[in-house]
Amino acid sequence: MDIVKDLLKGDRKALARAISMVDNEDLQSKEIIKEIFPYTGKAFIIGITGPPGSGKSSLINRLVYVMRKEDLKIGIIAVDPTSPFTGGSILGDRIRMQEHNSDKNVFIRSMSTRGSLGGISNATRGVVHLLDAFGKDIVIIETVGVGQSEVDIAKNADTTILVLTPLSGDSVQVLKAGIMEIPDIVVINKADLPGAGISQTDINIMLDFKNKRTWRPPVVQTITLNDVGTQKLWEEIKKHRRFLEKDDYLAKLRAERHQKDVLLFMENIIKTKIWNTIMGTAMFEEMITKINNKEIDPLSAAQEILNSIDLTNHE
Amino acid sequence: MDIVKDLLKGDRKALARAISMVDNEDLQSKEIIKEIFPYTGKAFIIGITGPPGSGKSSLINRLVYVMRKEDLKIGIIAVDPTSPFTGGSILGDRIRMQEHNSDKNVFIRSMSTRGSLGGISNATRGVVHLLDAFGKDIVIIETVGVGQSEVDIAKNADTTILVLTPLSGDSVQVLKAGIMEIPDIVVINKADLPGAGISQTDINIMLDFKNKRTWRPPVVQTITLNDVGTQKLWEEIKKHRRFLEKDDYLAKLRAERHQKDVLLFMENIIKTKIWNTIMGTAMFEEMITKINNKEIDPLSAAQEILNSIDLTNHE
Repeated sequence: MDIVKDLLKGDRKALARAISMVDNEDLQSKEIIKEIFPYTGKAFIIGITGPPGSGKSSLINRLVYVMRKEDLKIGIIAVDPTSPFTGGSILGDRIRMQEHNSDKNVFIRSMSTRGSLGGISNATRGVVHLLDAFGKDIVIIETVGVGQSEVDIAKNADTTILVLTPLSGDSVQVLKAGIMEIPDIVVINKADLPGAGISQTDINIMLDFKNKRTWRPPVVQTITLNDVGTQKLWEEIKKHRRFLEKDDYLAKLRAERHQKDVLLFMENIIKTKIWNTIMGTAMFEEMITKINNKEIDPLSAAQEILNSIDLTNHE
Repeated sequence: MDIVKDLLKGDRKALARAISMVDNEDLQSKEIIKEIFPYTGKAFIIGITGPPGSGKSSLINRLVYVMRKEDLKIGIIAVDPTSPFTGGSILGDRIRMQEHNSDKNVFIRSMSTRGSLGGISNATRGVVHLLDAFGKDIVIIETVGVGQSEVDIAKNADTTILVLTPLSGDSVQVLKAGIMEIPDIVVINKADLPGAGISQTDINIMLDFKNKRTWRPPVVQTITLNDVGTQKLWEEIKKHRRFLEKDDYLAKLRAERHQKDVLLFMENIIKTKIWNTIMGTAMFEEMITKINNKEIDPLSAAQEILNSIDLTNHE
């Protein structure tokens, strides 16, 4: 496809167009990903997540300056939260990253969730592939971590960074929720706020207690306003990368990710197949009527329908 | 099954045990739901969702007193949020509802998410069936609405109530996120806080603008501390129920829900089937290796695998 050729040549407009096609789940997007896939795997992927208001966008903004000093090409995907409660309020925050708009080696793309969670997660993965094939050295995925789905998106990263702010008295309760199993690096942002020191101690205790991995996540304090800690954070990211690249751990991690991708794609194909096979059929309508009349329960009905349809021969 | 018989006879211990089995996805839980299903459909289901801190538990606590005056039997399912960031902090809030613990006609159950979102959503539905068959007149599902999944759980209700607090300047942005398509009733709780009046006006404008349904959601102000507005809220719930029961709209709504349930169950069965068929097989391992070597992309791999396995003959 021409768009793929142009993209691989470094045409930013082709990249932007391809991203839109993937984001819109355009019919051609499958073909694009297929053609682009052999050129992927070079970019290092950083996931940054954390609750709303923890200052992720400002932190990324600072981090990009640091990375650019090493002449790295950067792609940023800012995924909008799925929450209908925090929906619109995040975009304003993202404006901070637009400082880099004039730098042609930084590509920033916002993606918002429309409908299915699987959709956004698929699309994000696709866009990572595009930026990777385009020649970005670093791809940053920013998610506003207010739910499992955002954490799932962040898991597509090689290094996952959890951004928190100094915690109040409920830090122990945050602990309970198993949050410390997510990150490879923990950032305490806005570290000039009261409680940063205690938070660091608390988080370190949690990490020592919870951590069964060979990599012990470091805790970095940052103050984005004064650009404190950004360089240190970047050093920790590079340290984690070196850790991953030793013993082929990165390759294993990515193979696991591929495995999960394949399973997810199979599920989606089958889902579509089921939908197309049974929706609107008399058999399905009758089954629903039987459920309404309490003659059969939904699970038993599902099993009966599956026994009666043919799911082989996929496109 | 004996447990089902005991439950139908009104044995609270049998109910509690059955709920635990469903919550734990116990092997027998399928059979329990199957046997219980013919006895469901009588309870009216109320979903209450809203951001953390909007005072949902206190509001439910008040609402239960009002309902109890009409001698209604009540079941409450408090679903813990899926967010690893707000995880533990909600439980304390729920303590407020324990005032009703000595009232044997009020059954309160907390459910927390373990792993899969589909899991909690399935389990919640199962527990609603159990409470319904047990003879509860009203089942309340409380979710902390910080993500799509919580909203999905709330959609299992006949009447969905969105609890907000007086909004600050970002109310217009909340509007954008399509939040107003969710509720049948909007509550502005903590209405003694500044901004309640303006919020009510804003929300009403949003509802008039967005609403294409035949039911126009009313906006109710409540102050749980002084028990203001609870009776009014209950009247609005009853009004919505009468609206649903007219023209068989409730039956249609529930039939749609059954349809969605069947589709979801089919997906889950197939997912398990795929998992059991391919995991650990040489064919799957080889495919992953091919992906790692960039010889095939994950989506094409998924299609090839699906073509090669047999998904018929489900238990």
